[in-house]
Amino acid sequence: MKKVAVIMGSDSDFPKVKGALEVLKKYGVGFEARVMSAHRTPLEASKFAKNARADGFGVIIAAAGMAAHLAGAIAANTTLPVIGIPVKSSAFEGLDALLSTVQMPSGIPVATVAVDGAANAAVLAVQILAVEDASLANALDAQRIAMAQAIAEKNEKLQNELSNI
Amino acid sequence: MKKVAVIMGSDSDFPKVKGALEVLKKYGVGFEARVMSAHRTPLEASKFAKNARADGFGVIIAAAGMAAHLAGAIAANTTLPVIGIPVKSSAFEGLDALLSTVQMPSGIPVATVAVDGAANAAVLAVQILAVEDASLANALDAQRIAMAQAIAEKNEKLQNELSNI
Amino acid sequence: MKKVAVIMGSDSDFPKVKGALEVLKKYGVGFEARVMSAHRTPLEASKFAKNARADGFGVIIAAAGMAAHLAGAIAANTTLPVIGIPVKSSAFEGLDALLSTVQMPSGIPVATVAVDGAANAAVLAVQILAVEDASLANALDAQRIAMAQAIAEKNEKLQNELSNI
Amino acid sequence: MKKVAVIMGSDSDFPKVKGALEVLKKYGVGFEARVMSAHRTPLEASKFAKNARADGFGVIIAAAGMAAHLAGAIAANTTLPVIGIPVKSSAFEGLDALLSTVQMPSGIPVATVAVDGAANAAVLAVQILAVEDASLANALDAQRIAMAQAIAEKNEKLQNELSNI
Amino acid sequence: MKKVAVIMGSDSDFPKVKGALEVLKKYGVGFEARVMSAHRTPLEASKFAKNARADGFGVIIAAAGMAAHLAGAIAANTTLPVIGIPVKSSAFEGLDALLSTVQMPSGIPVATVAVDGAANAAVLAVQILAVEDASLANALDAQRIAMAQAIAEKNEKLQNELSNI
Amino acid sequence: MKKVAVIMGSDSDFPKVKGALEVLKKYGVGFEARVMSAHRTPLEASKFAKNARADGFGVIIAAAGMAAHLAGAIAANTTLPVIGIPVKSSAFEGLDALLSTVQMPSGIPVATVAVDGAANAAVLAVQILAVEDASLANALDAQRIAMAQAIAEKNEKLQNELSNI
Amino acid sequence: MKKVAVIMGSDSDFPKVKGALEVLKKYGVGFEARVMSAHRTPLEASKFAKNARADGFGVIIAAAGMAAHLAGAIAANTTLPVIGIPVKSSAFEGLDALLSTVQMPSGIPVATVAVDGAANAAVLAVQILAVEDASLANALDAQRIAMAQAIAEKNEKLQNELSNI
Amino acid sequence: MKKVAVIMGSDSDFPKVKGALEVLKKYGVGFEARVMSAHRTPLEASKFAKNARADGFGVIIAAAGMAAHLAGAIAANTTLPVIGIPVKSSAFEGLDALLSTVQMPSGIPVATVAVDGAANAAVLAVQILAVEDASLANALDAQRIAMAQAIAEKNEKLQNELSNI
Repeated sequence: MKKVAVIMGSDSDFPKVKGALEVLKKYGVGFEARVMSAHRTPLEASKFAKNARADGFGVIIAAAGMAAHLAGAIAANTTLPVIGIPVKSSAFEGLDALLSTVQMPSGIPVATVAVDGAANAAVLAVQILAVEDASLANALDAQRIAMAQAIAEKNEKLQNELSNI
Repeated sequence: MKKVAVIMGSDSDFPKVKGALEVLKKYGVGFEARVMSAHRTPLEASKFAKNARADGFGVIIAAAGMAAHLAGAIAANTTLPVIGIPVKSSAFEGLDALLSTVQMPSGIPVATVAVDGAANAAVLAVQILAVEDASLANALDAQRIAMAQAIAEKNEKLQNELSNI
Repeated sequence: MKKVAVIMGSDSDFPKVKGALEVLKKYGVGFEARVMSAHRTPLEASKFAKNARADGFGVIIAAAGMAAHLAGAIAANTTLPVIGIPVKSSAFEGLDALLSTVQMPSGIPVATVAVDGAANAAVLAVQILAVEDASLANALDAQRIAMAQAIAEKNEKLQNELSNI
Repeated sequence: MKKVAVIMGSDSDFPKVKGALEVLKKYGVGFEARVMSAHRTPLEASKFAKNARADGFGVIIAAAGMAAHLAGAIAANTTLPVIGIPVKSSAFEGLDALLSTVQMPSGIPVATVAVDGAANAAVLAVQILAVEDASLANALDAQRIAMAQAIAEKNEKLQNELSNI
Repeated sequence: MKKVAVIMGSDSDFPKVKGALEVLKKYGVGFEARVMSAHRTPLEASKFAKNARADGFGVIIAAAGMAAHLAGAIAANTTLPVIGIPVKSSAFEGLDALLSTVQMPSGIPVATVAVDGAANAAVLAVQILAVEDASLANALDAQRIAMAQAIAEKNEKLQNELSNI
Repeated sequence: MKKVAVIMGSDSDFPKVKGALEVLKKYGVGFEARVMSAHRTPLEASKFAKNARADGFGVIIAAAGMAAHLAGAIAANTTLPVIGIPVKSSAFEGLDALLSTVQMPSGIPVATVAVDGAANAAVLAVQILAVEDASLANALDAQRIAMAQAIAEKNEKLQNELSNI
Repeated sequence: MKKVAVIMGSDSDFPKVKGALEVLKKYGVGFEARVMSAHRTPLEASKFAKNARADGFGVIIAAAGMAAHLAGAIAANTTLPVIGIPVKSSAFEGLDALLSTVQMPSGIPVATVAVDGAANAAVLAVQILAVEDASLANALDAQRIAMAQAIAEKNEKLQNELSNI
Repeated sequence: MKKVAVIMGSDSDFPKVKGALEVLKKYGVGFEARVMSAHRTPLEASKFAKNARADGFGVIIAAAGMAAHLAGAIAANTTLPVIGIPVKSSAFEGLDALLSTVQMPSGIPVATVAVDGAANAAVLAVQILAVEDASLANALDAQRIAMAQAIAEKNEKLQNELSNI
């Protein structure tokens, strides 16, 4: 099975990105995580992207804030699917990162998830790998059932709290 | 090879979605296109999504405007990768559709592309199918080279226009 | 008298939704509260909505954040009036939830109240039930008088504080 | 059956409000339409609102743009359900009207629909009247089926257009 | 000299409005402060506005948050200059209050100051009264000189801090 | 009676400012209009502002777009009331001009009206002059009555159009 | 004297960028213009940037729309001053390009001008070159005087138009 | 070598501006820092700007919040490059300051950096001075290499943390 690369623009993004790694681990998907910057280490970023397919990666996840160019810079150098996580910084509620990530020009898409949506980036990566991997698809389906059950349990718990109204 | 489904919330979205179909055709990727609404035909939308993997689809593209729930409603009923195209309508410059598409809750991602970014949705779908399809990956790489050449030609053409400044 | 259903997308929304239940209780309006998700339990949500009128509900209140599809997903499956509460999450100051809730396509309205406006959602539900219920209408009118008196009392209190300026 | 009042802040809003009247007529719901301004005729607006229930109205729809106070000013003077239509004007893509309409303080809700969402305001009014009117509820259900069929027909038509791709 | 009225929509706005009263007191301008709501006490608000000129007021300052109709509702019932203070609430960074206050329709202006700009509302009120009051104008000019001196002193103080860089 | 100055940042703003001059003329208020730029003619702008009170002006209206500093630059050099008209330019729907005009620092207010709200700027100027001018106040009151009558007439006209629904 | 490079992401940006070239020509500053894309020709863009100082450039101007990474991608590969022109595209009024251009991370600045502000980008480039070039500084000063005179002439012309009010 | 002036609208901005001074010191660039306000000390601001080139300054950095006119007011009075730092205040997430700083009219540019981007303002100033100063250019290049190494080290550190996932 192909690996997933998880790239972050700064190590300060790690707490926000960690959730993605945990999801990948839960599904048994191999991954590598790297700090790499579109602006501070552009050469490394483009090299990594150019070699990613040959290096056994199937999907690349990139997280960055502010003028979040990382996902786009990676996408410019590979034709692997690139997933962008816009990271909320100190201004604009993450709108700067969202627009910088999602508004890519024709020909170079970035699959953008919600602001600080690291877990979903990983789920999306697993979904992509599962297109040709039935057991991974089954694992995703099982997780959906578990999620629905969790909601049902929360609903049960809520019924108890209602007596306090 | 898996097919791509292209769903639109209204037939009035077709002119904006057409570009996606043309890209898929160019890459020789099989596709089906449907009008289907999260709000007006919710049953059809959920049925389609539930059966999509078994029906041979590998990726689903959904385009919708305003409170653009279509991609999310599809994603809620399948674990295939779902790509959302936020469609710009008469208000808010597409911001309503973008936020309604991208801000999905944990566990149910939608791979969101730019507002009215139909062509990129298709490229992303091809990239996803190409993860396990080397010839499709080669076609994507070839297209990148063609794009770079087109830019180089435009640059040449620009040099001529500069004499008019 | 018809009951009011209060649906929330996640039990973490309960503290924000609680105010709605308190208002309904104050007016003696029967209600049920449920955790139900447009994306994690889409089947349950649509089933609930489809049966809601037959189950004795007159109004459905739905609270959700981010790409807040819950109210719309409910509205797609019933012709009862559906009231949407956009819940403010960690980004965008609630704008994502507001636009996802209010910008519904033609034919499927959601009666949207302010961001985190749970109490008003309940008042609106009571107003709807009061259209054909004179005693409920009287209770609403009485509450308006009480509100005006509270303002008058606050004004009195303010006059005392002014001496400190 | 109770009537519906449709109030607009300016006669220039009539083209945008007309759709609401057509919906009401289609459902056989009685209505009156008025030009009335929260700022230019505040006395008339408050008088109208105060008498609306006694005058046989069950729901009031108010459409206004910019600092759209009309729905709120009506709601301040009645406990009938008030539906607000934010009208897009020359600036801010209707955001000014949306926020001015929906962000009502606790105790005085306005049921807000989409920017320029006149048809939906009327559907919502019919839904409110249908809470205690089974034949109106049936008419709403029938319309949903018709809408789904229209989508299905559009889908058929789309299949023909696909051959041109 | 005419008095200034300072109206707030809720006593919870008092901490934000207090600065206006302090400015008025500093300039020796008579004022009254009231809690009054466009939505909860619309009759009192319109009565107050209608009588304000006859009651000796020259300017009315109104502070409100969310769908901030108070200043507009006052302005609709008087031709005195009305100054609006948009109050930042729990969502939208005050943008809802700003747009609801400033985007008034033609014929009924509200002189809007910055979000939470109570002090400036009072300065503006004093400027308005000073148009025909030379001693008040002199006091305003003196205050400008004091402000410039304060800046000069802060600049001096800064020079000392620079040695720590 | 004091005069009103109407300053615009560029002659291209004249069509948007003209409405202010027409209102002033209708009320018989003397005015002067000037093209003057905070950035291109800063010296002239500050000179004008410094002399404005002595030159017989009672109010200054300033219209500007984009980073609309004109009103603030004038206000920095006079203690006369300064009214700002944010002018909508080619981007941001006038939000840039609105925020640049209204968000003034403590001590230097600008009385801001709606985006492109030239007529209201003039009405506000007249209201300010009318604080100490009973006949001008009467003229403003009369205009309000005329406005209410115009609304009533439009309402009559609407009743005729309703038969076409 | 150092040359100025003017880079655009697409030849479709040329009409918006042309104004920059005209300004540079007017000041007699040598320039080269190129079409080069951060995403479609990332290698060319980084090569160009890396060699720019050695190639005799003193300033680089980069214009791009949507997720406007071009200026940042150039800035990542040179320590020459890079000026970014955010280009307004079909959505978001240029806000996407502005935030993508200006919100650069610490260490890699982009000197951002107004949306579609090509002429100002060129003026800024000239100002940068003029820091050590007295005759260029004089030319800039002369242009300021010419601008002020143009405003004065426009003011004269306005006085004539006022007679039509 | 020319000096850099760092101007702030209020001494409360000093903590946000300090980073700029530290960067300048690190590069050995001479600087002066001043508190000076476009609105409270307009005369001092314009005087300073007019004399800045003759006083040996090569670049001026101006930091201000809200209706941030300071950079523009300085730029209106000098043809030196002026760098604007939009400072985030209590509302609008710094959007007011950003738009007030960057949206300058044609002819008077402000080189705008990110919200609260003081360090980058200083780097940009150094880049401008380095256009004609090879040793400063070398220092900038060296810093880029140091930044890339820091990223590489952070990447190493990340690899250790990954074992905890």
